[in-house]
Amino acid sequence: MPVGNMEELIPPERILLGPGPSNVSPRVLRSMTAPILGYLDPDFITIMDGVASMLRHIFGTKTGFTLPISGTGSAGMEAGLSNLLEPEDTAVILDNGFFGERMVEIANRQRANVIRVSADWGTPVDPDLLEAELRQHKQIKLVAAVHAETSTGVLQPMADLAKIAHSYNALFMVDAVTSLAGNPVEMDKTGIDFCYSATQKCLGAPPGLSPVALSEMALEALSSRRTKPMSWYLDLGLLRDYWQGGTRVYHHTAPVSMIYALREALRIVSEETLEFRFDRHERNGKALRAGLRALGLTLMVPDQICTYQLTSVQVPDNIDDVILRTRLLKEFNIEIGGGLGRFKGKVWRIGLMGESSRVANVLLLLSALETLLPQMGYEVTAGSGISAANAKLM
Amino acid sequence: MPVGNMEELIPPERILLGPGPSNVSPRVLRSMTAPILGYLDPDFITIMDGVASMLRHIFGTKTGFTLPISGTGSAGMEAGLSNLLEPEDTAVILDNGFFGERMVEIANRQRANVIRVSADWGTPVDPDLLEAELRQHKQIKLVAAVHAETSTGVLQPMADLAKIAHSYNALFMVDAVTSLAGNPVEMDKTGIDFCYSATQKCLGAPPGLSPVALSEMALEALSSRRTKPMSWYLDLGLLRDYWQGGTRVYHHTAPVSMIYALREALRIVSEETLEFRFDRHERNGKALRAGLRALGLTLMVPDQICTYQLTSVQVPDNIDDVILRTRLLKEFNIEIGGGLGRFKGKVWRIGLMGESSRVANVLLLLSALETLLPQMGYEVTAGSGISAANAKLM
Repeated sequence: MPVGNMEELIPPERILLGPGPSNVSPRVLRSMTAPILGYLDPDFITIMDGVASMLRHIFGTKTGFTLPISGTGSAGMEAGLSNLLEPEDTAVILDNGFFGERMVEIANRQRANVIRVSADWGTPVDPDLLEAELRQHKQIKLVAAVHAETSTGVLQPMADLAKIAHSYNALFMVDAVTSLAGNPVEMDKTGIDFCYSATQKCLGAPPGLSPVALSEMALEALSSRRTKPMSWYLDLGLLRDYWQGGTRVYHHTAPVSMIYALREALRIVSEETLEFRFDRHERNGKALRAGLRALGLTLMVPDQICTYQLTSVQVPDNIDDVILRTRLLKEFNIEIGGGLGRFKGKVWRIGLMGESSRVANVLLLLSALETLLPQMGYEVTAGSGISAANAKLM
Repeated sequence: MPVGNMEELIPPERILLGPGPSNVSPRVLRSMTAPILGYLDPDFITIMDGVASMLRHIFGTKTGFTLPISGTGSAGMEAGLSNLLEPEDTAVILDNGFFGERMVEIANRQRANVIRVSADWGTPVDPDLLEAELRQHKQIKLVAAVHAETSTGVLQPMADLAKIAHSYNALFMVDAVTSLAGNPVEMDKTGIDFCYSATQKCLGAPPGLSPVALSEMALEALSSRRTKPMSWYLDLGLLRDYWQGGTRVYHHTAPVSMIYALREALRIVSEETLEFRFDRHERNGKALRAGLRALGLTLMVPDQICTYQLTSVQVPDNIDDVILRTRLLKEFNIEIGGGLGRFKGKVWRIGLMGESSRVANVLLLLSALETLLPQMGYEVTAGSGISAANAKLM
């Protein structure tokens, strides 16, 4: 075996200010050292029930069915599309960023007919365009949208879309990967039928699970399928037989340690309360945005439609995207994200999510930028970013 | 949020002697507390490369492409079938247990034509039957078989099957979920094109990842697909762009902590060496089998075709399956497995895998059975099981 690869694992301690993963509380990391239980152990089933119940609270659903899918956020996306769509079904997908495009790609692979309702990256989709599309077509099975688009930082309001979708008898599916536990999702109140998220963003756990929630209407849609979902691994009907009810039917071996981590992260969320957590994300995001603007940088998304946990910033003309990010990583141990897709090389994505959403991180990042940008030929007024951020924090 | 579900997590310490998960070394559990890294952090890419390289060693392949799929063993099964099969392709699946049946189910969902070559549960499949089937049909894309069938404990020899498959130009896919790191797999030497496993069996890590390996022929088959795989999440071409080569293209956020755990588990395997690990599994399995026989219990699989890390035992006529397993769990903290599918209620499955494969566990389980069985009306000679096991261990 290659000896060079076998050294002791000592990863550096990064300050994770990218689009996720975010930093994880020591409490959550430590929870993963708890002893492993079998997937049908009565004690593990109690843990599963507790996690499902806490997820109902976070998603804002009283009667919905919740579980963490044994895969990352994209597995949750695929679970929704592959269980709610059958070949020849028609789906309308709102597409204003990288993850809207990913939904289109996955829906196509289900052999569904996909209608896109698009908007420019960095802007929300106009609900009137959705309505116009639904009026034209009959029998739309599903409308899907991204709540907080991680590629741009746009926060798309969900309530109007849900109303429109339901008025045409379509199911409404929402990507809450970056929004859950950072922005209110309120599944029941909003009228969401399938909502999926990920553990490594505002929830504050390591990446690896995708919490999902299904409304009663979504569950009915599962029962009335004409064909089996193409994915067996993500078959929500089979997963329900394991996660719910009196007889727990083995489907796959649950990722026990990851479920411990999610549970501990959910406990921390509940101790902080969702309301305080939303406020914290907003307050720190506002401070960051004020600081970045004071440095003369251009934000890609205006305040009224932004999600405060993920801010996309235009890379200034004379600055090399990769060099700046590499220096931030090497000299300050800070990770920020580059652009995805058509934003590659053009924007930085700065995340303040979960444990990473801290005043100290805002000030440290602004301070690092005030140091590095002038060295790379971009002039800033010393102290300006930090002053502007501090003014928002007072 | 429901308060009753929010108590501190304190799972009991079980002795896991079921079909997996097995016990996990404290070293592996502790590795998951290491700081989270971003999925494109250069330090994380070094870790990925190390894991891929150690996996090549474990799978026994010099030139194969290896990675851990971000899902459990069944996700590895689905990755293989959904990437190597297209609609209308024909697959021959060897089916002598629950997991052979699962392969049939997943292949059907890929809209492939499936030909089963079956054998009774508890017996291996006759390679001549495979050859006869291949002779009859033209253009078989894939032959798939289970190496160590977790529902029965049969160890199916792979080399003859590989030769037959290749002589008819079919790819050869192997389920090594229970065999990897417990029995020699030797992918290159055997002639395996796609091999998948799971972390929670003989590898000794928590459940959550599915290490897989592809031969060059399998990689060529990926490149020459006419259609995209139905699963985007498990698309091995996209995963390869992230796991291999100079430009790492984002696919999904890697489950960082689980990859740390796998890495530490692989280090432990390499310190023990595969050879010693195989011997340990065999020695402890032989002792267990001798002890169970001395208690008058009937093993479902004869020695010549058994896998020593998973022993299936017939539930005696007058003993209630569930009561015995519940008492083992409550009174001795020992988990053993029940039967799956047609073996439900009829067999116990006793695993001695990875960390769980210890002399102490063999003796403890036999001692617990010697205590419980007579209380439930099944007569055994006191000390007989332990003596017989000890004789094998000397």
